[in-house]
Amino acid sequence: MPYPIIFDTDPGVDDAQAIAIALRHPDIELLGLTTTYGNVDVETATHNALLLAQLAGRSDVPVAQGAASPLVKPRHPAPAHIHGKNGLGDIELPKVQGKRDPRSAAQFIVDTVNARPGEVTLVTVGPVGNLAAALQLDPALVDKVKRVVVMGGSIREGGNVTPVAEANMFNDPHAAQRVLTAGWPLTLVGLDVTHRCVLTREHMDRIEAGQGALGKVLAESYTFYSDFYREFLGIDGCCPHDSCALAWLLRPELFTTAPGHLAVVTEGSAEGQTIFAPEGRGFIQERWSQTPLVEVCLEADGQAVVEWIAETLS
Amino acid sequence: MPYPIIFDTDPGVDDAQAIAIALRHPDIELLGLTTTYGNVDVETATHNALLLAQLAGRSDVPVAQGAASPLVKPRHPAPAHIHGKNGLGDIELPKVQGKRDPRSAAQFIVDTVNARPGEVTLVTVGPVGNLAAALQLDPALVDKVKRVVVMGGSIREGGNVTPVAEANMFNDPHAAQRVLTAGWPLTLVGLDVTHRCVLTREHMDRIEAGQGALGKVLAESYTFYSDFYREFLGIDGCCPHDSCALAWLLRPELFTTAPGHLAVVTEGSAEGQTIFAPEGRGFIQERWSQTPLVEVCLEADGQAVVEWIAETLS
Repeated sequence: MPYPIIFDTDPGVDDAQAIAIALRHPDIELLGLTTTYGNVDVETATHNALLLAQLAGRSDVPVAQGAASPLVKPRHPAPAHIHGKNGLGDIELPKVQGKRDPRSAAQFIVDTVNARPGEVTLVTVGPVGNLAAALQLDPALVDKVKRVVVMGGSIREGGNVTPVAEANMFNDPHAAQRVLTAGWPLTLVGLDVTHRCVLTREHMDRIEAGQGALGKVLAESYTFYSDFYREFLGIDGCCPHDSCALAWLLRPELFTTAPGHLAVVTEGSAEGQTIFAPEGRGFIQERWSQTPLVEVCLEADGQAVVEWIAETLS
Repeated sequence: MPYPIIFDTDPGVDDAQAIAIALRHPDIELLGLTTTYGNVDVETATHNALLLAQLAGRSDVPVAQGAASPLVKPRHPAPAHIHGKNGLGDIELPKVQGKRDPRSAAQFIVDTVNARPGEVTLVTVGPVGNLAAALQLDPALVDKVKRVVVMGGSIREGGNVTPVAEANMFNDPHAAQRVLTAGWPLTLVGLDVTHRCVLTREHMDRIEAGQGALGKVLAESYTFYSDFYREFLGIDGCCPHDSCALAWLLRPELFTTAPGHLAVVTEGSAEGQTIFAPEGRGFIQERWSQTPLVEVCLEADGQAVVEWIAETLS
């Protein structure tokens, strides 16, 4: 399996879809799930991660709990109108049998990466506080991960929680600034591409048919989540934000990327915005071009991405 | 003449084109030119405004000098590589005969608007310090202007001097924040539309043929300015940014606009960015939707705009 990953997540309906991919895809070796507040509080995130692994028959996958709040700013309330109070569309859920790993998410990341230096990809699809905390424990991680894939941010697409900021970045802009400028190989998968992808009921019917007990949870929570998309955004379906990070990892040819420099605004009305300076583009001052080079996704073949998601889970 | 305007400017090659329109268009009553630093220092801006009026045979138009520097931050050097050291492509210029109005730009604006309450439109195409200074002298201006048209900012297009900021807003973000949130009827004409417009050599040949001594200055300065566009931006022609503000005023049907709330970032890496919250769109907090409603241009029929410019000056 060419892709050993740690999946850092706040499930969350679209997280659950991505977790299912991480649990099921034959090319992914899922070393662990690490959890954070975000779409839900962190205890709920951990509960859901354990449950999803269990429903997939993968209770062997470690689940390590992490950030309950942002690094610096106060926590915003969880968006229960989008993901439900229980993070999975308020559907009735089976009882969880497993237990979480005793280590913090950050320690789990540090231990796991150090055990296989150069091999592990960190895929993070929530506020990125666990990665910032891992860097606090072991700054040399930047040279030991294979890559970091961040679902978050927006370059040209505008924001989803503010006019310019995407939710994961806005939820912990200080952690995001640390993680996006750490100097490790990093790819940003933001709203510029996730908004091109719409997972429809038809796709979800195929997923439900293919995934047994797990498929039932994905399909029922999808109904709640897509109600939000219909009512607030006028979209018939939902954007599978978090699965896009895995789609980029396994099917990068479906995405258009550009190299450049990122910064995250931590204060003021642009708080949480990701600012991207394309490599080689001159600006009035050097400051936007002085952070380490990373890669950002600017466009995607949205139809092919959602087809890949549905096919993976069929 | 249905459009009495004050034209606030830092000429500047594209300013000169717009000034020519303001001087020549039969539907514009040009009450005065007010000058600011920006593309050049303010003394050069005043010199060029006087010269352009003189070349058009309109030395009757008052020219009042204003801001030599930003309200709060230090001044950035003028972009001599774009507009030339003399603001008009470093071509040789005739001698100026006229003299500037003894009043400051801000006082000129206050006096002129108060003399004709409800009638005057302020069109500003440089850093907006003169309008902020006018509001400092007479805050009630907000109820006495007919409209304020601002060439500046960028909603989705990205910036031209930073990854997110347009030059006029970046040059004086504190003044921009004051002016864009003052609560007067305001239209923002930013890079989202000016970048759709490319004035070609063919257009400029028509302008040169139609404008005598003034046409010669416009055509020769265009050559310098379009060299910058070719070398740095790979564009064959130039964006007639400032003329777009007048195009919106006289031919609004060529533009797509949206109502909403603006704010300008004054500090940090997003400094000078214009943040736009569309009217009625909900965000995670109310703060982006609490500034007064204004109108922003989001799209334009660029070909029709440049045709209008060329036709006006032919």
